Amino acid sequence: MSVEDRLAAMGLALPAPPAPVGNYRAGVIRGKVGSLSGQLPIRDGNPVVTGVLGRELTVEQGREAARLAGLNVLAQLKHLLEDFAALDGLIRVDGFVASMPDFLQHAAVLDGASDLFAAVLAERGAHTRSAVGVASLPLGMPVELVVTFATR
Amino acid sequence: MSVEDRLAAMGLALPAPPAPVGNYRAGVIRGKVGSLSGQLPIRDGNPVVTGVLGRELTVEQGREAARLAGLNVLAQLKHLLEDFAALDGLIRVDGFVASMPDFLQHAAVLDGASDLFAAVLAERGAHTRSAVGVASLPLGMPVELVVTFATR
Amino acid sequence: MSVEDRLAAMGLALPAPPAPVGNYRAGVIRGKVGSLSGQLPIRDGNPVVTGVLGRELTVEQGREAARLAGLNVLAQLKHLLEDFAALDGLIRVDGFVASMPDFLQHAAVLDGASDLFAAVLAERGAHTRSAVGVASLPLGMPVELVVTFATR
Repeated sequence: MSVEDRLAAMGLALPAPPAPVGNYRAGVIRGKVGSLSGQLPIRDGNPVVTGVLGRELTVEQGREAARLAGLNVLAQLKHLLEDFAALDGLIRVDGFVASMPDFLQHAAVLDGASDLFAAVLAERGAHTRSAVGVASLPLGMPVELVVTFATR
Repeated sequence: MSVEDRLAAMGLALPAPPAPVGNYRAGVIRGKVGSLSGQLPIRDGNPVVTGVLGRELTVEQGREAARLAGLNVLAQLKHLLEDFAALDGLIRVDGFVASMPDFLQHAAVLDGASDLFAAVLAERGAHTRSAVGVASLPLGMPVELVVTFATR
Repeated sequence: MSVEDRLAAMGLALPAPPAPVGNYRAGVIRGKVGSLSGQLPIRDGNPVVTGVLGRELTVEQGREAARLAGLNVLAQLKHLLEDFAALDGLIRVDGFVASMPDFLQHAAVLDGASDLFAAVLAERGAHTRSAVGVASLPLGMPVELVVTFATR
C-alpha cells in the first residue's frame, strides 16, 4: 500500500507544502542526506492553531497541532522527492513545543506527529526525537518539527 | 584501553540505556549517519535531577546533570552499535538547558558532558556543540543532549 | 567571483573565527557531513550585541546580530575547509532567537543570516531553516546559528 493510500485509509490527504517565509528552502538534499525546514501547523498559508501549551492549549490540542505539522512534513517530502519511493527513511525529528515553564508533557504532544509517521511510513518512519519546550515559535504557533532524512 | 576500561578507571559504568517515552526510537542509523534521541539525566527510568538553572539549580548541579545525560548517550551508542569499534566519531551535540532568562553559563553546564566524551572517546569524542537555554524540558529535567554521530 | 571577492564587494571581510568556549570543536567533518558549533554575534571574543527580541532589541537589531553570526559561520567554514572550493553546500541552519514569549518575527531576524549566505555562496548557500524563540543564549546574545553542511 502506498503512502498516499495509507493516508487515504486514515481519511487524510497531503496538503499543499507550505512555502518558506524567508530566504531559505523548504527542503535541501546533498549527497544522501536530506533536511526539511521547520514545519508548523499551518494550512493554506495560515496558522491552524496558535498558543502555548500549559496556558491556552491542552495536550490534546498540542497533539493535533503536531499531527498537522507532521502532515506538512509528509507534503514537503513528497514535493522534494517527487515519489516516496526515493525516501530511505526519516532519521531525526527535533520537536519544539511553545510551553509554559511548568509544562512537562512534550512527549505526549509530539506523539501526534510520531504516530502519523509510524502509521503511513512504517519502518521508513522510524526516527529519533528530541523534545524541547520553548518561549515562542514563528507566528505564535505551538509546535515546530525539524526533520532530517536519508534518500535512496 | 577500551571505552569501558576508561569509564571503569573513572569509577563509572554504563547505565541501562533509557527507553523512549513515546513512539520513536532511541537511535537510528541510515547510511553512515547516526542519530540519538534527546538524552536526559535519567537513571532506571526516573529523573535523577529536576529543576531550572538560575532558579533552584547551581552551575555545578547542571554540570553533573549534563554528565549523567552524557553517560546515557554512551549507553545508547553501545546498545545501538553493539561495540564502540563501530563508532567513527561524534559529530554534533545540541545541548538544551532549562534556564531562567538571566542564566548565561550554558557552556559551563554542558562541559559536564563534553568533558566525559573527551575523556572516554578521545579523538572520536570530538564534537561541535550548540548551547541553548529553554523554557522547559520533558519531566522537568534541566539538560537534554541531542547527538549526531558517524559510523565506520 | 570568489566568496572573498563577493564579501569585499559588499564591504565585508571574514572575521577571525571565534574560539570554542568549552571542551568542544568549532567544526567537525566526518565522511562528507560537516557541522559547526553554534555561532553567535561575537567579534574579537566579545559579544557585539546582547539582549532579547521583543524587549530591548528591535527586529532590525536582531537582523544585524544574525548577519554577524552568519559572518562567523563563513569564517568557521573557511578555517575548517581552508578553501570554499571544498564546500559542496550548506544543508541546514537552526536559528535560535532569544525572545520574549510574545515575539513572533523570528523569520525576519534570521533572514539577516540567510540573505548573507545567498549573496556570497549563491546556490551553495541554499539551506533549510528552523526558527525557534528561546529563553536565553550564551553570554546573553540574541541569536545563535547551528549549521550543517556537505563537503565535496
